[in-house]
Amino acid sequence: MTKPKGLDSLEPVAGNGLLHRRLFLTGSAAVLGATIMTAKAAPPEVPAWMKTPGMPMRAYGERSPHEAGVQRLVNAQPSTTGSGGSRTPIEALEGIITPSSLHFERHHSGVPDIDPAQHQVLIHGLVERPLIFSMEALARYPLVSRIQFLECSGNSGGNNNAEAPQQTAGGIHGLVSCSDWTGVPLGILLEEAGVKPEGRWLLAEGADSAAMSRSVPMAKAMDDAILAIHQNGERLRPEQGYPVRLFLPGYEGNMNVKWLRRIKVTAEPTMTKDETSKYSDLQTNGRSLLFTFPMEVKSVITSPSGTQKMRGPGLYQISGLAWSGFGRIRRVDVSADGGKTWAQAALEGPALPKALTRFRMPWRWDGSPSVLQSRAIDETGAVQPTRAALMAARGAQFRYHYNAVQSWSVAAAGDVSNVYA
Amino acid sequence: MTKPKGLDSLEPVAGNGLLHRRLFLTGSAAVLGATIMTAKAAPPEVPAWMKTPGMPMRAYGERSPHEAGVQRLVNAQPSTTGSGGSRTPIEALEGIITPSSLHFERHHSGVPDIDPAQHQVLIHGLVERPLIFSMEALARYPLVSRIQFLECSGNSGGNNNAEAPQQTAGGIHGLVSCSDWTGVPLGILLEEAGVKPEGRWLLAEGADSAAMSRSVPMAKAMDDAILAIHQNGERLRPEQGYPVRLFLPGYEGNMNVKWLRRIKVTAEPTMTKDETSKYSDLQTNGRSLLFTFPMEVKSVITSPSGTQKMRGPGLYQISGLAWSGFGRIRRVDVSADGGKTWAQAALEGPALPKALTRFRMPWRWDGSPSVLQSRAIDETGAVQPTRAALMAARGAQFRYHYNAVQSWSVAAAGDVSNVYA
Repeated sequence: MTKPKGLDSLEPVAGNGLLHRRLFLTGSAAVLGATIMTAKAAPPEVPAWMKTPGMPMRAYGERSPHEAGVQRLVNAQPSTTGSGGSRTPIEALEGIITPSSLHFERHHSGVPDIDPAQHQVLIHGLVERPLIFSMEALARYPLVSRIQFLECSGNSGGNNNAEAPQQTAGGIHGLVSCSDWTGVPLGILLEEAGVKPEGRWLLAEGADSAAMSRSVPMAKAMDDAILAIHQNGERLRPEQGYPVRLFLPGYEGNMNVKWLRRIKVTAEPTMTKDETSKYSDLQTNGRSLLFTFPMEVKSVITSPSGTQKMRGPGLYQISGLAWSGFGRIRRVDVSADGGKTWAQAALEGPALPKALTRFRMPWRWDGSPSVLQSRAIDETGAVQPTRAALMAARGAQFRYHYNAVQSWSVAAAGDVSNVYA
Repeated sequence: MTKPKGLDSLEPVAGNGLLHRRLFLTGSAAVLGATIMTAKAAPPEVPAWMKTPGMPMRAYGERSPHEAGVQRLVNAQPSTTGSGGSRTPIEALEGIITPSSLHFERHHSGVPDIDPAQHQVLIHGLVERPLIFSMEALARYPLVSRIQFLECSGNSGGNNNAEAPQQTAGGIHGLVSCSDWTGVPLGILLEEAGVKPEGRWLLAEGADSAAMSRSVPMAKAMDDAILAIHQNGERLRPEQGYPVRLFLPGYEGNMNVKWLRRIKVTAEPTMTKDETSKYSDLQTNGRSLLFTFPMEVKSVITSPSGTQKMRGPGLYQISGLAWSGFGRIRRVDVSADGGKTWAQAALEGPALPKALTRFRMPWRWDGSPSVLQSRAIDETGAVQPTRAALMAARGAQFRYHYNAVQSWSVAAAGDVSNVYA
């Protein structure tokens, strides 16, 4: 591998110590944290756990008890019958796959305990042949698999507040997760039912006690929508809609109706309680936007991030996640000087369409107060906006689809906090 | 989308009912399992679980109790102190990611219960600066992430037996799994230690009570080896080497030393007990092959597969997994007539290098006895061999690296069994 120019001398590629994205691939890193053994040092002792046989195998594994602190941040709404959400601790995770046990949740009436042998999915309305599918019948249909993100439209909404919330990256942005989803293409089932020419929309309804329901354009249903039955290999988790959910790649989370029991083909959107009482966007002119479906281009630095503490000046790897409901991430830029200068981050692996994409950037922190930012650009050319630009365009009462650049302030003492920069 | 020629009439593309791989993308499928509602039929009743609020959120989720039967197949060796393996139930999973709770295991002295605050990794031997890394120190190093498979070299060994074992796909081939692995490139750490010119090999040793150890060529260590600390987002599972394992993409499983405590740079391979008493390949001439590292190109149909039962003649989707330790899967062919004729299967998503790749193929089963096979080809052009060719080349005493084509017999009654065809 040819070393990018300037790596040996660790020349910055942008202000305040950002280094070339390929630095760490060249082995140019100085000693970061290892202890150098002297010739006289005794070798490490044989630890206790090497002196007795270990634990037996298990039919279904669990994580180490030492990792029990990595949890979803549960935010139940006390006066409701099971409404609320829980957030993925994205600052504690790496790679792009979210373990299913830590996938974010957003429920409107708790998690139903469904017997898959009794569950059915009905397709009716403007169709030639109304159909009912048992789970056993659905399992006879062809499957497709894709690694894709799911994001709640309310994600990052805390940054609409006048004061920047002082929380972890997950606490602010953790209503996003990414899984390997497998399911039956909805288009196959709709073609089998025979959609009538006037059928331009769907109503999708869940089997929770809120009967959560949303309107979906027929074009999306026929494009890449699936009835998902597997998540990261195994069957869906209860919190993700077991035994079957609607999955609409790139569309706001609540449209991906969990515990799916009914799809009704309609001529017009149904205007359900779930898309008029909420999930609409109040504009500065007093009117609301309805049906703002795709989640727009976005990114967040997860390391270092809010409430963490840097361990003194030195070489660091900035790491974060980028995604877009419009397709692939094309590029992520990082700034260490609050947006004055930018440099391109490295993207891990092939950036998959509508999937979380991991980015990384080397940074030599000199110990001075700094503001870190990331800015994603997707394959359509859409650029993640600054907070100032987003707030100016939308006004502070806009609740959903917050996708502005996140700014993390690093104080001289190393404390990382959320700032509006 | 243009329909591939012949799809409307469901014309076969190979013998015994194999249909074009893009059939299901065109909506040409007939009714597979749905019930057609008549005009007079009552709509489905509102199920019990819609009549009361559901369960609350959880900080760390679990799967539905209805899925508890999906388990690893544990095979402990009774006369040992924790030697044995457990297999991934690949026939119950979909997509390419293996949930960490179902990742296969192979231990030589059980699973040590390691305190990450006390664990250390030593790099010594033929280096300028012996180094010791605490887990906190390792976490300061740059990370890389990749979705890659891990396969035990003994996987599929049951098919060496004279009689074809009558087990599930996982029971025969389940010593393979695929995860999103994140870790520190080993090359960075070795360059920091300063490998002396005569250092051409490594000894990697685990912190289990077997001190499982293997020799690794320096070229692999400097290529794509990592010290893995995350698996599918969260930290490694105990069974996968918590808090840190060596990960050598594409190399036989046991070399990916779990609970890694020591890397010693050496001039020659160490000839440890774990690479002389086993993990060597006895040939027909009485001599053994040592250091057969990469796992060769391979595939297996997971649906339908051994011990399953087909539900009568009709349209099916054949689904399976392919992988190669040499890189990407280029192509998978499927046969429904025991290898007389073949047709190309569809591959899901981008076939990632050294990752499981999902393939799919539509099949119209006419109810007659059939033999299903899959044959993978990797990007180097290597073709998965037939069992007859593999056995002729290696002899029956060859224990590891079995990668022959798997044949599943489908009887007229629908029972699927393992056959040597």
